Amino acid sequence: MSEKGILEFKALRSVESCLFHRCCLTLERHFGLNFEKIQKIKGSKVETVFYQSEDLNSTLMFKYHIASKAITIEIDSPTFLKTMSFEDMQDLAKLIQMEHEQDLGFPNQSDSWQQLPILQLGQSFNQYLTTSDGRVIQYGFKSRVFHDQSKYQTIDIYDTEDHGKILLLDGVVNLAENDTKAYTEILLGLPKNEEQFNQKRVLILGGGDGGLLKSLLTLTHPPSQIDMVEIDEKVMTACSTHIPSICEPYLSQRSGPNFNVITGDCFRYLEVAQASAKLSIWSIQRALQESRTLLDQGGKYLTHCNGINVPSSVGNFKTMLKSIVKDRAQIIMRSSFVPSFHEVWTFFELEMK
Amino acid sequence: MSEKGILEFKALRSVESCLFHRCCLTLERHFGLNFEKIQKIKGSKVETVFYQSEDLNSTLMFKYHIASKAITIEIDSPTFLKTMSFEDMQDLAKLIQMEHEQDLGFPNQSDSWQQLPILQLGQSFNQYLTTSDGRVIQYGFKSRVFHDQSKYQTIDIYDTEDHGKILLLDGVVNLAENDTKAYTEILLGLPKNEEQFNQKRVLILGGGDGGLLKSLLTLTHPPSQIDMVEIDEKVMTACSTHIPSICEPYLSQRSGPNFNVITGDCFRYLEVAQASAKLSIWSIQRALQESRTLLDQGGKYLTHCNGINVPSSVGNFKTMLKSIVKDRAQIIMRSSFVPSFHEVWTFFELEMK
Repeated sequence: MSEKGILEFKALRSVESCLFHRCCLTLERHFGLNFEKIQKIKGSKVETVFYQSEDLNSTLMFKYHIASKAITIEIDSPTFLKTMSFEDMQDLAKLIQMEHEQDLGFPNQSDSWQQLPILQLGQSFNQYLTTSDGRVIQYGFKSRVFHDQSKYQTIDIYDTEDHGKILLLDGVVNLAENDTKAYTEILLGLPKNEEQFNQKRVLILGGGDGGLLKSLLTLTHPPSQIDMVEIDEKVMTACSTHIPSICEPYLSQRSGPNFNVITGDCFRYLEVAQASAKLSIWSIQRALQESRTLLDQGGKYLTHCNGINVPSSVGNFKTMLKSIVKDRAQIIMRSSFVPSFHEVWTFFELEMK
Repeated sequence: MSEKGILEFKALRSVESCLFHRCCLTLERHFGLNFEKIQKIKGSKVETVFYQSEDLNSTLMFKYHIASKAITIEIDSPTFLKTMSFEDMQDLAKLIQMEHEQDLGFPNQSDSWQQLPILQLGQSFNQYLTTSDGRVIQYGFKSRVFHDQSKYQTIDIYDTEDHGKILLLDGVVNLAENDTKAYTEILLGLPKNEEQFNQKRVLILGGGDGGLLKSLLTLTHPPSQIDMVEIDEKVMTACSTHIPSICEPYLSQRSGPNFNVITGDCFRYLEVAQASAKLSIWSIQRALQESRTLLDQGGKYLTHCNGINVPSSVGNFKTMLKSIVKDRAQIIMRSSFVPSFHEVWTFFELEMK
């Protein structure tokens, strides 16, 4: 593993060359590191200067962004940054800033420098994931509890302080132990709409972590029957074994007086259901298109959507829902900050007229 | 502004040279970019190769971490990455991975590559902040609503989709509009301990955003008197003007039948209070040491602490509290995931015996 520190400055005038020199001196004087210049590349938009350390293991890269007059300083080191705390990096930034101001002969703007947190490169598993709009979030994964590749996807379960255990499918956060209220309950419209599940029939399309199943079965007045159709047996086994708080004992039992878990393709299941008598059924998650012929008046289709930071995506989803149900359903949007997603997530509820 | 993309691979054997070559070919073939090698540095821990693009504006950096056999590929570009989506970067990673496997002659491990989200360099304000344990969180700051430097600190207010308005002091997130429940109410022990504030006297040391003040004044049975002592006038004016949902109308009024906001140094205020008659007072936040002589039996001292991801810090804080109050107070710890902090935060309540 090695580490990467990035500092950024706004230059009031083109002082990049004295800054490069100054930064090297600061690093040498305060941290005992020696860098020497190996290459300067002068592009029309960015100027880049590479430096290498005496021991050849660390590199220093300066970038001068000509249009924005921003200077980026990147330090990569397998040894140097390890011994530096975040506060040390801030001290280094302040030192360079101060000496930069001395060079300029006047104080720079107080907001003229910023620092990207130290990044860890070469780790054994990825801690850096993204929100729906591509922002980086570094997770505090303490340990990888489970890792396997199923026929359908990569399944990972990590343990964290902030969210409890987290389930990732193909590297994307699906659900965390501490998301029950913020995700599962909001998707179901609980606690407000709790009464509406009383004695209803529910079909869960997917939902392999078992969170929806457990939330519904533990209601004061649970549905009369829940069928859950999940294609990936490995997801169910992994969650049942490693995140029991979300789904147990229901996911390991697989069936009971009022529920049945089917391992299979939910689209095939829908075909069979459509061929048989019309049911008064509530369906949750994907496949509105296939489900809606099964929904009687008052029947509901509940689904999650996307992060609120991608309004175009949420808008398109709503348009898609409208185009499928036309005027035959009332559409309600809910939203909730989901801790393990690190953003506000949106959910839709369609009630058939 | 320019952008930085980082991909990481685990090499099963030392294939870095063919990977470097392969990556360049992939970039050229699929994205029309031409890079040529300018320097190779072979350290004992890391090997680094720099490439430059034909137009000299983009750079490509390969790092081979010898101990972990991890390969890091960094692409910096003012133009190239702007036109690439996150999915494009993933496609690129998959392409290189696939071609890497062809070179090896056998499939690599499925978890052998990971990708850091694209980083934005040279921005006008910093979007990358850290949790208490130094993890990077990229905030979705839509606009900077307020920026000023007071005598005591830098004050920033940003607008976001996920958290509403956020107050930063010296670049550190202090409070967001949507944190009222997760931060202010947990600090106060609400709603469970609401009854305990009824007709009590409360002293708020600091609390410039006015969140605590408003939460207490809007209780069904509010305290009989609240004194708030805040040193930074500029923080109060900024919050009153730009985050009214947190503190209004109380912060602009500054006084009422049962509250009084004092601009000043809370330590001086405590000295005066200590010199006068002993009060039955509840004090919130810092300065237990100075406050405790003012606390009668049953009086409480409430304070926030640190993130749960730094257990040593939380442990030291608790030890410090114990050493001050000895056996004369009962200490209770509470914790809560604070959305705008992106982590679980801890709070302490001390009740004088």
